[in-house]
Amino acid sequence: MTSPDAQKQRASDWFEDLRTRICAEFERIEDELADGPHQDLPPGRFERKPWTRTAVNDDPDSGPGGGGIMAVMRGRVFEKVGVNVSTVYGRFSEKFAAEIPGGAENPNFWASGVSLVAHMRSPKVPAVHMNTRHIHTAKSWFGGGADLTPMVPDDQDTADFHAALKNCCDRFDPAYYPKHKKWADEYFFLPHRNEARGVGGIFYDYLNTGDWEADFAYTQAVGEAFLEIYPQLVRRHMHDPWTAADREHQLVRRGRYVEFNLIHDRGTAFGLKTGGNTEAILMSMPPEAKWP
Amino acid sequence: MTSPDAQKQRASDWFEDLRTRICAEFERIEDELADGPHQDLPPGRFERKPWTRTAVNDDPDSGPGGGGIMAVMRGRVFEKVGVNVSTVYGRFSEKFAAEIPGGAENPNFWASGVSLVAHMRSPKVPAVHMNTRHIHTAKSWFGGGADLTPMVPDDQDTADFHAALKNCCDRFDPAYYPKHKKWADEYFFLPHRNEARGVGGIFYDYLNTGDWEADFAYTQAVGEAFLEIYPQLVRRHMHDPWTAADREHQLVRRGRYVEFNLIHDRGTAFGLKTGGNTEAILMSMPPEAKWP
Repeated sequence: MTSPDAQKQRASDWFEDLRTRICAEFERIEDELADGPHQDLPPGRFERKPWTRTAVNDDPDSGPGGGGIMAVMRGRVFEKVGVNVSTVYGRFSEKFAAEIPGGAENPNFWASGVSLVAHMRSPKVPAVHMNTRHIHTAKSWFGGGADLTPMVPDDQDTADFHAALKNCCDRFDPAYYPKHKKWADEYFFLPHRNEARGVGGIFYDYLNTGDWEADFAYTQAVGEAFLEIYPQLVRRHMHDPWTAADREHQLVRRGRYVEFNLIHDRGTAFGLKTGGNTEAILMSMPPEAKWP
Repeated sequence: MTSPDAQKQRASDWFEDLRTRICAEFERIEDELADGPHQDLPPGRFERKPWTRTAVNDDPDSGPGGGGIMAVMRGRVFEKVGVNVSTVYGRFSEKFAAEIPGGAENPNFWASGVSLVAHMRSPKVPAVHMNTRHIHTAKSWFGGGADLTPMVPDDQDTADFHAALKNCCDRFDPAYYPKHKKWADEYFFLPHRNEARGVGGIFYDYLNTGDWEADFAYTQAVGEAFLEIYPQLVRRHMHDPWTAADREHQLVRRGRYVEFNLIHDRGTAFGLKTGGNTEAILMSMPPEAKWP
């Protein structure tokens, strides 16, 4: 049995390690661009910027505690990609505590995770989101997932992305993929538009089977599956030609991404309500978007 | 004493009349552009599109009832301006009713108003928002206001805009301007950025002094003050030169406008929660925005 302190350390170490490997792989992709309108730009490199959590306005007891490292790359394949790791702890506001499992018992929390959103220059390369996280309150759990947002869905990409996630899920529990896919379909949905954000993926939260090692291994596998499949999709399409109309369509679809993130995204709400770093939280916003 | 039905009719008629005069004035401005990078575009004209309110998803008893007319112009001075009138009625969802004065007593509501957001091509011309509205639940009240969002504040513009509103307020009650200016300062504020959306203006809600005629007259005066001052500011700056850096700055400031509207704006929340027309509600979104 791993102690809570050891659990926290192992999880946060792994989130940082995944971040490092993702950034390295995305930089390799930047080096590989061999054609297209942005080939003359220098290959992008991540810039890392540490930040420290400060207390939430309405509750000085809430912090400070912890912080994170933003890594952002503005490249020639990745128009803007943010990969954030953070480990924060403190006390929830009374109102927010009531919404969080274990929060009503004890408002103290510890949360660590890695979160990624990539907005691509080419409208032919899908945008993507991935997050894995570990939370301790009076309870403890893992959460995470990955979902794909193509500008124009490509059946093969959608099939391959889902197959990679299903393969990962099935190694742990045959119930995971259908359950976590359904959760993603329900979560990544804009009711006011009556449309899905993208073609889905998986989403899970509050995962605590009683076997911490298994739950951590599953969360790691989700991160590894993302790192395996998404670079394949980028390389598959990064040299496809696109038109000005494709770009315009991409910018409009990105507007929907903005609507989702500001109205519905739990991570955004969690961050803004727990004194997270606004610049890090809103790194998920696209570099450019349109509502024509 | 005017009957509630007569109050509703007079208010909604006036909102439509104000809409018509604003649209005509903005089209005149479009005709007047005599210089600059967009002079070769055709002068913009409003396109009007009626819509009918449908029931809110989770409560078939909530509607339908009423609707509105969106008027949008994509011009050469006004990059995108929406002027919406709507008159809707029905029943609030139980959850939403609890948040609205009189809603707990009786969930039936009637709401009418005119709402305007203008995003300008020139970064030297301020963006603007104006809204006036009349609501009937078990209670009844007026609300409204106007506020200016320059990309780079200009002291004279700010002074003139506030002077026009103060002049209007002072004709009704010397307490109105300080109170409604403060309300705007507090309302048009982004806590997560710790910054104001623009240079303010006035904002008021739940206005019911017991004298319906006076409250309606004040609301009309706010609309007239807007129609008097904003076109002056547009004409003052529409021929000023600007640079690519000014435009970039404008697009970033518009990102803040998006954040405000999707996270904080009451009208947006009211509309999305009462089965309003998504296209009409989100007409306030800028045509283009950046989060670089």
